[in-house]
Amino acid sequence: MSHIGLKCSECSAHYDADMLTLHCELCGNVLDVSYADNGDGQQSSGMPTPLHQPAEAISLGEGGTPTVALRNLGKALNAGMLFAKLEMMNPTGSFKDRGTAMMMSVARESGVEEVVEDSSGNAGASVAAYAARAGIRAHIFAPSSAPAAKLEQIGVYGATTHRIDGDRQAVTDAAMEFAERNGMVYASHNLSPYFTEGTKSFAYEVVEQFGEEVPQHIVIPVGNGSLLIGAHIGFKELLHSGRLSALPKLHAIQARAIMPLVSAFIDESKPLPAAGSTIAGGIAVANPPRLRQSLRVLRDTGGTAATVEEQDIIRWQRLLAQREGIFVEPTSAAAFAGVEALIEGGKIQADESILVAATGFGLKDAIPAQQD
Amino acid sequence: MSHIGLKCSECSAHYDADMLTLHCELCGNVLDVSYADNGDGQQSSGMPTPLHQPAEAISLGEGGTPTVALRNLGKALNAGMLFAKLEMMNPTGSFKDRGTAMMMSVARESGVEEVVEDSSGNAGASVAAYAARAGIRAHIFAPSSAPAAKLEQIGVYGATTHRIDGDRQAVTDAAMEFAERNGMVYASHNLSPYFTEGTKSFAYEVVEQFGEEVPQHIVIPVGNGSLLIGAHIGFKELLHSGRLSALPKLHAIQARAIMPLVSAFIDESKPLPAAGSTIAGGIAVANPPRLRQSLRVLRDTGGTAATVEEQDIIRWQRLLAQREGIFVEPTSAAAFAGVEALIEGGKIQADESILVAATGFGLKDAIPAQQD
Repeated sequence: MSHIGLKCSECSAHYDADMLTLHCELCGNVLDVSYADNGDGQQSSGMPTPLHQPAEAISLGEGGTPTVALRNLGKALNAGMLFAKLEMMNPTGSFKDRGTAMMMSVARESGVEEVVEDSSGNAGASVAAYAARAGIRAHIFAPSSAPAAKLEQIGVYGATTHRIDGDRQAVTDAAMEFAERNGMVYASHNLSPYFTEGTKSFAYEVVEQFGEEVPQHIVIPVGNGSLLIGAHIGFKELLHSGRLSALPKLHAIQARAIMPLVSAFIDESKPLPAAGSTIAGGIAVANPPRLRQSLRVLRDTGGTAATVEEQDIIRWQRLLAQREGIFVEPTSAAAFAGVEALIEGGKIQADESILVAATGFGLKDAIPAQQD
Repeated sequence: MSHIGLKCSECSAHYDADMLTLHCELCGNVLDVSYADNGDGQQSSGMPTPLHQPAEAISLGEGGTPTVALRNLGKALNAGMLFAKLEMMNPTGSFKDRGTAMMMSVARESGVEEVVEDSSGNAGASVAAYAARAGIRAHIFAPSSAPAAKLEQIGVYGATTHRIDGDRQAVTDAAMEFAERNGMVYASHNLSPYFTEGTKSFAYEVVEQFGEEVPQHIVIPVGNGSLLIGAHIGFKELLHSGRLSALPKLHAIQARAIMPLVSAFIDESKPLPAAGSTIAGGIAVANPPRLRQSLRVLRDTGGTAATVEEQDIIRWQRLLAQREGIFVEPTSAAAFAGVEALIEGGKIQADESILVAATGFGLKDAIPAQQD
């Protein structure tokens, strides 16, 4: 009997763990990993894992990213200590590798030989890379309008790229239809419970790196919310096991042009606003399937959601490179612009400590390009 | 009195440590760091450092890169264990950050406010990033023919880029003239003894990661040789302190088109051959100032020097991405092509273990067109 199962993120339904079940049969919501008990499935770090053989995990050395103090910008913001965790220093250049490593490791344990994913950006490249390493064939569906450089990075890893006309939803629909028609696993970074589970190592590292002094505020750029949700899972596990005394406040930053989580945070009963376009491609997600889960993370930790303007994203991308030597993609710059907004809005006080997830390398998205 | 000095790499001359002395006044050769004794200047890792206040070092979280086993390609090569140390997962995407972090930390300790460097590639971006973080102004001299993307990465960090017509030597000459005329420090990654010293942490990490089982062969792409020389310094320190029982063989790989070290290794008395052109920009160094030092490293460790062809560099770049999920720049792919050459040439035997330095991220270079 497996030490893990899947549980609905909204209702109480439980399911056996596999790679095919992505939605609750009762209420249609997304699923999370659940553990039979706390004794099983723990790695040496004490971190529960869905893997039956963690030593055989597909790894490219993801995680273990450095955290650096940003004294120049902290001073400029008149903030307490400001830190960045450099998630951009993951094997394919983004935090997505944490989730992908777990998802593809489960896939290989499950004997999966071929996966389907839809993404024109970081997740597509990440899935393509780990699939290559696992010896699993990958089909990446992307908008035909996606920037050539991003499609090329996906192609470098040997994945088959399917270019789809139409909007972002059309791409997702095509991927799901293709997976179903061919009996393949839809390894969606937005839906897979293993992907979210994989990102929780972020929280374990924060506690390891800071010890008793975990920053009071953790600021994350949020599209689908997998890092926000995964970090929350990790911090809660650490709280329950006594290695953390209080949850840090998790804050979500979105671009003003595409702000479903911010809108829902303000008034959950209102319909999500129509999406515009943003240079922050990693958070350009108009209808995130894990929206309600993200909302609960903010409320559970006392965090908030804020938007930033395009010109502030660009300004902060430059500030980070020119004042701290850190070259992030616009999505990550949005989170730093968000810190400024949270300070100005009184959500973060002058003497409090802040950690920002620098989620993606600037080289991945150097030239502002058309988004999907 | 300082715990460090500078010593000539060829004769016995010693000099006080500063940021301006780059050549021996007696014989004109490049300099290395020397320590007054073994007791001073040691970090907690036991690694001697030129820094007076290591806690105040300029750091972006460089080093600590993961090492991964390449089972798919090791099998394909019929090799013993094949490993890659992912130096591409450094803050600006290349191993150069190890050397730059040390060089710029010394610069800041010395009160330097403005530096000059010449590079169109990884070193230029690295110096620009660490200068930004240190609050030091940087002038990067580059050939006007350098790829726009590389110049853009340098510019992102706020460095002043000087585009120079003419060949590579003309760029170096212009940088040195500019530095001298303006009384600025010429922070050359090719000449600075601190840069080489910074790269030795590579060796300390290899010993930490492998323990008693350090791979028998370490294969490094060599342009100027700073990683080769730095690794050798580190391994020798570890040998002398008893933490390593024997030096691994250090092998140098160059492109057939630009092979000064290979030529000198075969026959040191012959003049260096005229340089062609190669896609491996990081090792396109026709007249490396540390050539004789590199040669001694190969001889001291029982290593060798080999060349690879352009088509093999491209083939190995694809193989690494498509079989292992690791996307390196052509310079790093050359080292893997070199492993194949060393095995075929009988320099590495079937059951021996090999570690390759994957020196730079593929995103830093143009992606070659795919034919899949």
